[in-house]
Amino acid sequence: MDIKIGLLGCGTVGGGVVELIRMRADKIAAMTGLHPVITDVLVRDPDKKRNVTFEHELLTTNANDIIQNDEIKVVIETIGGIEPAKTMILAALRAGKHVITANKDLIALHGPEIMEVAEQEKLDFLYEAAVGGAIPLIRPLKESLTANEISDLKGIINGTTNYILTKMTESGANYEEVLREAQELGYAESNPSSDVDGLDAARKLTILASIAFGTKVSLDDVKVDGIRSITAADVAYAHELGAVIKLLAVGKDDGHALYLQVRPTMVPKAHPLAHVNDAFNALFVHGDAAGDLMFFGRGAGSLPTASAMVGDVIETLRNMSMAIPSRFRTGPVTTKAVKKGSPEPLRYYLRMHAKDRPGVFAHIATIFSNAEISMETVLQKRAHDNQAEIVIVTHETPSGSIESAILQLNDLNDLLEIKNVIPMEKGDA
Amino acid sequence: MDIKIGLLGCGTVGGGVVELIRMRADKIAAMTGLHPVITDVLVRDPDKKRNVTFEHELLTTNANDIIQNDEIKVVIETIGGIEPAKTMILAALRAGKHVITANKDLIALHGPEIMEVAEQEKLDFLYEAAVGGAIPLIRPLKESLTANEISDLKGIINGTTNYILTKMTESGANYEEVLREAQELGYAESNPSSDVDGLDAARKLTILASIAFGTKVSLDDVKVDGIRSITAADVAYAHELGAVIKLLAVGKDDGHALYLQVRPTMVPKAHPLAHVNDAFNALFVHGDAAGDLMFFGRGAGSLPTASAMVGDVIETLRNMSMAIPSRFRTGPVTTKAVKKGSPEPLRYYLRMHAKDRPGVFAHIATIFSNAEISMETVLQKRAHDNQAEIVIVTHETPSGSIESAILQLNDLNDLLEIKNVIPMEKGDA
Repeated sequence: MDIKIGLLGCGTVGGGVVELIRMRADKIAAMTGLHPVITDVLVRDPDKKRNVTFEHELLTTNANDIIQNDEIKVVIETIGGIEPAKTMILAALRAGKHVITANKDLIALHGPEIMEVAEQEKLDFLYEAAVGGAIPLIRPLKESLTANEISDLKGIINGTTNYILTKMTESGANYEEVLREAQELGYAESNPSSDVDGLDAARKLTILASIAFGTKVSLDDVKVDGIRSITAADVAYAHELGAVIKLLAVGKDDGHALYLQVRPTMVPKAHPLAHVNDAFNALFVHGDAAGDLMFFGRGAGSLPTASAMVGDVIETLRNMSMAIPSRFRTGPVTTKAVKKGSPEPLRYYLRMHAKDRPGVFAHIATIFSNAEISMETVLQKRAHDNQAEIVIVTHETPSGSIESAILQLNDLNDLLEIKNVIPMEKGDA
Repeated sequence: MDIKIGLLGCGTVGGGVVELIRMRADKIAAMTGLHPVITDVLVRDPDKKRNVTFEHELLTTNANDIIQNDEIKVVIETIGGIEPAKTMILAALRAGKHVITANKDLIALHGPEIMEVAEQEKLDFLYEAAVGGAIPLIRPLKESLTANEISDLKGIINGTTNYILTKMTESGANYEEVLREAQELGYAESNPSSDVDGLDAARKLTILASIAFGTKVSLDDVKVDGIRSITAADVAYAHELGAVIKLLAVGKDDGHALYLQVRPTMVPKAHPLAHVNDAFNALFVHGDAAGDLMFFGRGAGSLPTASAMVGDVIETLRNMSMAIPSRFRTGPVTTKAVKKGSPEPLRYYLRMHAKDRPGVFAHIATIFSNAEISMETVLQKRAHDNQAEIVIVTHETPSGSIESAILQLNDLNDLLEIKNVIPMEKGDA
């Protein structure tokens, strides 16, 4: 039996979904007993040139042609952003259609509201592609690791920043230069803020954290630092220190509260996350029974995203063919205190410029000593204009101590500028 | 509502399952609406000392106390091996009980037969723990990656051999010595054949391959080489060549046939699988839409295995609470030609002893040249007693050519012995 599917939006991801469903329609029919056919596609401009050739599909600029069409049983949303996607998805659910989306912004901000409607209507609302592209993350967290108390999530979940940091590491070029290249290649948007300021990673972290830690999480709960402050000098020092700089999304449940943070981090080369390059994503998970787990794969792109979305379509068709209602509506089962930042002492890399005169380092060392911070590595180089560049890597230090030391350093006359402060991971997972 | 669970066998894994279900019973009840209670445990000797304290559970030596008990709705099998596990599982399914197992030997040999019974009875038969311990592998392959044609599986899926090879690499010790230590520590069995001869990995590969490639696979379809032939000398040369030796399970669908193989392999250190050490497991998957994926985690152990089994219990309870029948009964959807070995040209490492006299190497080089094999690296060292040790790494070579060269080398008078031939992976995934 044919199952008619409506597609909202047909950009890069939508095109991949059309292509993959066409390629696999017969195989999906053999697996599920139902034959998927995309019949209607909502686009802004029907005359725009696309990578997909439309043969039997009806292109429309009116969402109601899909949402009010009783023959369409499944809607795939690839428009992105909050509106009009939210209104369309809610209308589709209320009209009795299963919905599949990759819309991380929408899930991060309005996920619970939409899931409640899907639950009332006993419909599937699936979003495996919203985090980690092709990597199965949502389903393993929701279904496979449910016997665990998860204490740690740690991942590289934004492809654009990982691409930029990888290129900076490989070429030694500065942030602005690599960003411009990435924009020219289409890997970064003309307004790159959502990626480079860490917001996209923060949204994905709230989605993962709400599932993994089984609690309500909002975007405001995440401490967010992006990668704009990372310079070629920091990348070079990272290399000298045996590390690479990565933008990590970190969730930590210490038994009392849940801590959430997105931050550039020095990752030692012995750590598996140090080798996750370009547009690849990876997520580390620590469960009390399972121990350490890692999931790795392509975090974006037309076909990798379509892989996850069409996987969701297949689950929906299986459920339809067996008359199984939407299964996984379980929201948060506990309410935990959620805090920004990290509860654990971290190592810190500090890079600063000081006057190149005797006694400066002694002053700095005294401040660290008074804050009870011990130093692991010190590098000092002559900069220009009678300035010295001093790099210090601390041993593990509570965040309060490092903040207090930074305040005192700022008052130090001979210290001209603290150029950057970046936390540093331990060597292994 | 309490759901009574019967446990068949209470060794290391069974003890972990009891512990984890007790720890998580309330959380599971909050998630599923059903409260799991292990009421009956089949053991061989009720008086044996165990790590678990039994309070309310009835220990029995009679399987029928569980299988014929109408109050028990779910049976967890942790006995292992083919019989009596198979008979008990089939009887439990026929008596209307859902079954969860980690029994890879049984699934590899009799999986289809048991799944057919589960399907007839509309019951769950789940076995996520059978491959890769805590790592979600079965469910992602069955549910998340279904939109893909999988072309490659490549993994480290036997913990014992990975432990032995890791220790040989770290210590430089010989195989026999490390095996003895592993046996003393309980990491290897007194009869280690199933692990070190590659059979355990081959059984797990048949389970993964039948799901990933959607076809019938039997153990006889797998070319199997174990690690007994690996010496400290090979491990040292691997290091010299920038690689480590790993036992890889490899499945490759080249579009015409499926090729299956378990073999020791030199893995360059730039390859992510080179860093999977000790008892960790990892699986690489390549799908045509998803691209490269990797799953990494603990492949064995009491709690990691229990993590996967109790995850399956939770799925079963969810299905019960929603009156959902067993969902994933889809067996193979195609029948493919299945062949042993590898369809692709590989690089090969050859270590041989020859008489230390002029002209020997020229003879060897001529044989390689006649077989159209080009050499990438040649190392030659003086061994003892006027013997030279020659190590050759070839460029990519069809398996037919390397076999023909080996035949000719064996006829060469000055060549005393071919000590080992080990294929070598490319540097990246």
